[in-house]
Amino acid sequence: MRLALGVLASGRGSNLQAILDACARPDFPARVAVVVSDRERAPALDRARAAGVETLWLNPKDFADRESYDTALVRELETRGVGLVCQAGWMRILSTVYVRAFRGRAMNIHPSLLPAFPGLHPHRQALDHGVKVSGATVHFTDEGVDTGPIIVQAAVPVEPGDTDDTLAARVLTVEHRLYPEAIRLFAEGRLRLVGRKVIVNPEGRG
Amino acid sequence: MRLALGVLASGRGSNLQAILDACARPDFPARVAVVVSDRERAPALDRARAAGVETLWLNPKDFADRESYDTALVRELETRGVGLVCQAGWMRILSTVYVRAFRGRAMNIHPSLLPAFPGLHPHRQALDHGVKVSGATVHFTDEGVDTGPIIVQAAVPVEPGDTDDTLAARVLTVEHRLYPEAIRLFAEGRLRLVGRKVIVNPEGRG
Repeated sequence: MRLALGVLASGRGSNLQAILDACARPDFPARVAVVVSDRERAPALDRARAAGVETLWLNPKDFADRESYDTALVRELETRGVGLVCQAGWMRILSTVYVRAFRGRAMNIHPSLLPAFPGLHPHRQALDHGVKVSGATVHFTDEGVDTGPIIVQAAVPVEPGDTDDTLAARVLTVEHRLYPEAIRLFAEGRLRLVGRKVIVNPEGRG
Repeated sequence: MRLALGVLASGRGSNLQAILDACARPDFPARVAVVVSDRERAPALDRARAAGVETLWLNPKDFADRESYDTALVRELETRGVGLVCQAGWMRILSTVYVRAFRGRAMNIHPSLLPAFPGLHPHRQALDHGVKVSGATVHFTDEGVDTGPIIVQAAVPVEPGDTDDTLAARVLTVEHRLYPEAIRLFAEGRLRLVGRKVIVNPEGRG
């Protein structure tokens, strides 16, 4: 049986689309069970509907605080048997309620080679620092901002004359390959968490 | 006329060897004028002698303090018309006397993708953090530890089962390509320092 994914998305959902495309391949070991957004009009929800995937808008205004929001979020994901949650452009801070419920079963993607340039505006940070190599990272979610155990990374060159936009576009093509790769490794049981390190088993368990 | 290099080396000098090998190519725009070591028996000095390059041992015990050592070092380099200094496994802390004399004309190499993992034991730091991509950086020397403006970088994968030694060996092959590349860019007048960023001009001035 294919692993049930929950995808959390607040924005345009380009990484969601890469995940949906991967799941459309017959040999991919996961399927998207539900896409959750905190924004009613997130284009990501349109992408989910177009792929025939259930969507759920959880309106922050319906909840007294972050913890009650996250409690509802966790319940909705668990009700649908979600085995792995993928944050894909989720703009809301997630509380320990969520992090604890899905520890080792929730991933996020960040467009830099972490630990360099965590947080907001990583491409601007990278260009301001003058690095010649940047990239993308998929990591397990923990309590920090982009601090979780690293699953996969890939590098891209920074080119002379790059702007935030040109660098972001180059990194995005790598993100779209990297997120499905991380999901596949998880779904095939090839990831083992040792301390803060993710050991990738070269052999599948299947 | 080819740019005169001074190379500072305390150890076995594998990056020095890569620089000597590059300089042996007829089209390379630089030559090693002198190799300086703070250690009398550094294998790097043997490599220099084997290449017919002048060597100089500056014994720290002959100087009262760091500043007087660096004053002598700067004088020896300037006497020989050195236009660019390459620190290649130089284990002594350099004072502002040196940094000011050669600002924008001194480079160092560090075996990580800076700003990640500066300082000692970068490979151990990288493995402990669990990154999946590491690499090497050539940067201009400034007052900090591995904080100077970045000239060139290249990435290498971290493989499952890597130790300090296997990762160091993989990064070292990249270092040996990267240091001559940075020297060539400098010698061809293609580097421009803007704030903390190094702009690489794709056209040579020649």
